[in-house]
Amino acid sequence: MLDRVTAPTPFGRLAEQAAQRERAGLVRTLRPRAADSPLLDLASNDYLGLTRHPEVTEAAAEAARCWGAGATGSRLVTGSTELHAELERELAEFTGFEAALVLSSGYAANLAALTALTARGSLIVSDAGNHASIVDGCRLSRAETAVAAHTDPAAVRKCLDGHAGEALVVSDSVFSVDGDAAPLAELASVVREFGAGLVVDDAHGLGVLGEGGRGALHAAGLAGAADVVATVTLSKSLGSQGGAVLGPAHVIDHLVNAARTFIFDTGLAPAAVGGALAALRLLRREPGRALRAREVASTLHGRLTGAGLVAAVPDAAVVSVQAPTAQAALRWAADCRAAGLGVGCFRPPSVPDGISRLRLTARADLDGTQIAGAVDAIVRTAPAC
Amino acid sequence: MLDRVTAPTPFGRLAEQAAQRERAGLVRTLRPRAADSPLLDLASNDYLGLTRHPEVTEAAAEAARCWGAGATGSRLVTGSTELHAELERELAEFTGFEAALVLSSGYAANLAALTALTARGSLIVSDAGNHASIVDGCRLSRAETAVAAHTDPAAVRKCLDGHAGEALVVSDSVFSVDGDAAPLAELASVVREFGAGLVVDDAHGLGVLGEGGRGALHAAGLAGAADVVATVTLSKSLGSQGGAVLGPAHVIDHLVNAARTFIFDTGLAPAAVGGALAALRLLRREPGRALRAREVASTLHGRLTGAGLVAAVPDAAVVSVQAPTAQAALRWAADCRAAGLGVGCFRPPSVPDGISRLRLTARADLDGTQIAGAVDAIVRTAPAC
Repeated sequence: MLDRVTAPTPFGRLAEQAAQRERAGLVRTLRPRAADSPLLDLASNDYLGLTRHPEVTEAAAEAARCWGAGATGSRLVTGSTELHAELERELAEFTGFEAALVLSSGYAANLAALTALTARGSLIVSDAGNHASIVDGCRLSRAETAVAAHTDPAAVRKCLDGHAGEALVVSDSVFSVDGDAAPLAELASVVREFGAGLVVDDAHGLGVLGEGGRGALHAAGLAGAADVVATVTLSKSLGSQGGAVLGPAHVIDHLVNAARTFIFDTGLAPAAVGGALAALRLLRREPGRALRAREVASTLHGRLTGAGLVAAVPDAAVVSVQAPTAQAALRWAADCRAAGLGVGCFRPPSVPDGISRLRLTARADLDGTQIAGAVDAIVRTAPAC
Repeated sequence: MLDRVTAPTPFGRLAEQAAQRERAGLVRTLRPRAADSPLLDLASNDYLGLTRHPEVTEAAAEAARCWGAGATGSRLVTGSTELHAELERELAEFTGFEAALVLSSGYAANLAALTALTARGSLIVSDAGNHASIVDGCRLSRAETAVAAHTDPAAVRKCLDGHAGEALVVSDSVFSVDGDAAPLAELASVVREFGAGLVVDDAHGLGVLGEGGRGALHAAGLAGAADVVATVTLSKSLGSQGGAVLGPAHVIDHLVNAARTFIFDTGLAPAAVGGALAALRLLRREPGRALRAREVASTLHGRLTGAGLVAAVPDAAVVSVQAPTAQAALRWAADCRAAGLGVGCFRPPSVPDGISRLRLTARADLDGTQIAGAVDAIVRTAPAC
């Protein structure tokens, strides 16, 4: 028992870590934006430009007025409204899955799927570039996790080979940092050799890939398969908040009964449900938005690489441009901002390979003038290599 | 390599588990409610009756219109609006902490605090009755976890004694199932003997306990202490959605830099932020709502035990009434529903001691007639013991 005065300070370690971050130039600071920010947004995940679409915001507002500002409880107690059920039906139908379950975030959806669909003795094979929420889902599960090389079906096969029990393979469909796509058809083929399950996080594919934005799994002919489960967000193409798991009805029923991040979390707020539902209906009515996002990405990529910058060919609506150093990336992003352009800036430890990048969102609602202005600002402020 | 036709079915284990649940009478089913449900709600966590308050719903609607239906990105990229910053300032000021950080759920807030404030070699001492999100936060952290007997500071001391490294003690302030309170002053005193940190989930205390609903930590004189961190939800007394961590500014800065469920999650939707902020302001203007919730709880408890039912003395706004069996509890809740009353029904595995219960929310906005009607329905439909 220590004297209170001489006791170690709790949270003392944090000051040391803060100093380390400071020295490494890796301090992250919140920069709240104004409602009327003049920046042209190429940093968000609002791929279809629906977040501020009047139909979407009015539906969110109407849902708050009609159902209340919150869901009032967990989904199994008082937190399920008919609006939640409607969104789940339409989301499943649109993406080609049998059933859907809405959660409060994509993070929660990944934790739910990975913890509830595995057990002690299961194996999860996870792509090395998977999102933090997948990594955390693997850690939170009782399964053993094998990390396979990035987008490498042969590496996945090697991990599955020799495992006797149940196995799941999990991958992002489109990787957030570089915007590259997973080889879903090849992954499914490997998965099926072993009778495993496939879980795909289609957060960056929904609304952008597939016929009319039905997503990467629909595009790969895998939507609705008995051995495939998808997770998606409602906060990117659908412009709102929340996440969902899509899959066979009996799998969704299982999640209702077993997924802790579903059972013990307050239901998604009605406004978020209403906003996502309106965005989904808008996308069905205007399926060209998905194609347009991909066209904008392709145009951005073509012009930026044409000007000598290094960027991977975009598989969806994310264009990732390499920077020579973390410091240069930070300055580049700041210079873009000074030129009226908001861009994402990914630095270690958020990048898998240590290469810092500008991350650009190819929003479907960007017009030719905006694209030209964005390219000009990025090229003009580019650091020397 | 297995032939596809003879391969084991993925998710095959789930059918077995579904059959087990069926046999045990423990199948959970979603029951979406209508916007105009005629049930008197004693099942939600809407302690102050603010979810449908016009000021709160109008603020949520206005936020969606002004800021968009979603936050558009993670808080460190595009997902922080001035509205988020405003809520964080006012929430910290109200509860008596130096700083606050808003996340998309209370679940995410607990995961953030427990993973980012501990490291390999840390010890977390966790109350046996803690919420699932705390349990998952302990599991997701790199720390070792010791589970201490429920509300037992001596058991906590025993766990801390002999541990050489950093330690955190974590507890709900009010336990959701039984509505009993943690002995916060005694816990703080034990924590301080060892120079440990104290993390308290005040989800069911904020808005109900303390002066004007400032929460359990404010009531215990612990708000703003250097060794105390609180997590709260915006989805209970504040009638909206989301969660927050409250603590010293340097701890909050650390979470911004290190908490994965903060960094890699989309920011809370503006409508939820606006709704919570309006509810908070309403509570400041009408502090009597907190006291009223406790009075309603006390009245419900007095009348129900007076009629021979078994219920723990409520420490906040949750009244928990024991049922003889899980089946009886289910039938009791259904009979209440038939009588126009919505009540919570907690059964294994959601109850720590195997005792099934009706869980009643003592909403501050219930009037005398509603309370009398609720008591009458519950007593009239009570199972024989």
